[in-house]
Amino acid sequence: MSRYDEFQRFREDLNEKILAKGTTHTKRFFTLDTKVYEGDTALPAKTKELLGLAASMVLRCDDCIAYHVDKAVQSGASDEELFETFDIALLVGGSIVIPHLRRAVEFLEECRG
Amino acid sequence: MSRYDEFQRFREDLNEKILAKGTTHTKRFFTLDTKVYEGDTALPAKTKELLGLAASMVLRCDDCIAYHVDKAVQSGASDEELFETFDIALLVGGSIVIPHLRRAVEFLEECRG
Amino acid sequence: MSRYDEFQRFREDLNEKILAKGTTHTKRFFTLDTKVYEGDTALPAKTKELLGLAASMVLRCDDCIAYHVDKAVQSGASDEELFETFDIALLVGGSIVIPHLRRAVEFLEECRG
Amino acid sequence: MSRYDEFQRFREDLNEKILAKGTTHTKRFFTLDTKVYEGDTALPAKTKELLGLAASMVLRCDDCIAYHVDKAVQSGASDEELFETFDIALLVGGSIVIPHLRRAVEFLEECRG
Amino acid sequence: MSRYDEFQRFREDLNEKILAKGTTHTKRFFTLDTKVYEGDTALPAKTKELLGLAASMVLRCDDCIAYHVDKAVQSGASDEELFETFDIALLVGGSIVIPHLRRAVEFLEECRG
Amino acid sequence: MSRYDEFQRFREDLNEKILAKGTTHTKRFFTLDTKVYEGDTALPAKTKELLGLAASMVLRCDDCIAYHVDKAVQSGASDEELFETFDIALLVGGSIVIPHLRRAVEFLEECRG
Repeated sequence: MSRYDEFQRFREDLNEKILAKGTTHTKRFFTLDTKVYEGDTALPAKTKELLGLAASMVLRCDDCIAYHVDKAVQSGASDEELFETFDIALLVGGSIVIPHLRRAVEFLEECRG
Repeated sequence: MSRYDEFQRFREDLNEKILAKGTTHTKRFFTLDTKVYEGDTALPAKTKELLGLAASMVLRCDDCIAYHVDKAVQSGASDEELFETFDIALLVGGSIVIPHLRRAVEFLEECRG
Repeated sequence: MSRYDEFQRFREDLNEKILAKGTTHTKRFFTLDTKVYEGDTALPAKTKELLGLAASMVLRCDDCIAYHVDKAVQSGASDEELFETFDIALLVGGSIVIPHLRRAVEFLEECRG
Repeated sequence: MSRYDEFQRFREDLNEKILAKGTTHTKRFFTLDTKVYEGDTALPAKTKELLGLAASMVLRCDDCIAYHVDKAVQSGASDEELFETFDIALLVGGSIVIPHLRRAVEFLEECRG
Repeated sequence: MSRYDEFQRFREDLNEKILAKGTTHTKRFFTLDTKVYEGDTALPAKTKELLGLAASMVLRCDDCIAYHVDKAVQSGASDEELFETFDIALLVGGSIVIPHLRRAVEFLEECRG
Repeated sequence: MSRYDEFQRFREDLNEKILAKGTTHTKRFFTLDTKVYEGDTALPAKTKELLGLAASMVLRCDDCIAYHVDKAVQSGASDEELFETFDIALLVGGSIVIPHLRRAVEFLEECRG
């Protein structure tokens, strides 16, 4: 199982457990967190994924970065668009973002591959 | 002098002092930080400002938020696009972002006004 | 108008503007953010406010700290309980929390006064 | 050796090395960090562990989260109390907390198991 | 009263209140936080202040930055040494550090003046 | 291959990929991030590495910490100097830094070994 598949599997398994045991508030938060990126609204879905990606990069969460790289690719983002998003995250967030950028680029290759 | 003008004045005065006393590295960082948002490239300038805005909101820097709200407005972002960007920052960054959202919305009114 | 009243006024004014212009997602987030602290559930309301306070202190958001100090006081938290919460935030978050602790203690005096 | 045992082993081994080589300040910090959670004081030990847990979740430190989940369970926290603590961390800290919540829930199962 | 004096006054007043009402743990933390920078040890006092400054800049705490700029100046740090410290904070922490750098440079002028 | 070698290998491989696909801005950021630590300037190279280390510890990035521990050791930092740097990071950043301190100390042993 690739890193990508493993990540998806763990994500799904645990989300299921969280939603089974969590409160109504937990469930509502998870629903809201999905809906906020859905569809082309004032902003295209692709742009919303890139916004989620930039936010995840400066907050330095590898799983969140992987998730939004995957979704951005699925919504049609090109490598050029992704690398310009990476640049903004790098400038805003500083060199501390670099290790996460490395893993983002490695994960992007898996998504494309 | 409005909060907006005061902010611009302080920003310019101090940037001048920093660039006068700073090293070559300081200057290069400042140049890079301007260039990364410039023009329509793979991503439109407006999208790049929204990315800078989302990153600034989750990192909770009021001056950075004000700066990117201003630039996003100048590059043609609508209120709908700005509020969708706010939503993503709010979901990713949590309720801790709310006080900054309040000041962002207040600043947006000044920019529009 | 005291710092406390000013803070409440600004908070209410801007929340109104945000809810007027925000999307359904914004509104839902705000509702959820209120409901999660409401009432005595598995945890007493007071404990939930102290949890919100500790989280706000280590994330270093003065408005959020003031809000939860106020709510904790209203739900019956004693100074001893508040200072023990401050201690945990201080130990977990480090000396970077101290300036926020100063403002928290100043605000607590206003709440009690 | 389970993830839980491995975590405990590494934690103990390295703490020993740190205390052997560290300065008086290092030792005092470690002592203080233990004492601040000890016993039922103005706040019950269980509440103090939940405060440490909420703070660790919004700061997104998996080891700290695991440590406080373990201690909270030992001090008698129920799943309901833990999930309400998770909710507050989720609301305050945002969706960036979710990957840590997944690992917290996985670790909680190991602690209960 | 200058910003510098106002800052010192508030700092002292509130520290006094915190130490009066705080627990033994609060007091010990405050003592430790002073002692860790004291004197020329393996590292000279000046270097320790610059370390505290760099840490405060990337964590973006204006009061902590002002405190360590003041202490670094008192321990003999030159402008060149301070600006090189600023550069490292800027590179590690990114453009989000810039607003704090502006206030650091303004405060440094007050300290020198 | 030791953890140390593995880390170096991954770092070099991915940097190569990033620089191959990245924009001019990416490349300039990477260059700047190297140059800012180079040589004895107003501050000795060793001090600059310790500043990068303290900044990386409070921002809690294991790869960045490992990188600066390695560079600090290469530039002649003693264990005493490193542990005093650790102390400042611990006090400024709080107990949330401890898990990273453990891995820093483990990595330091590998560097010395």
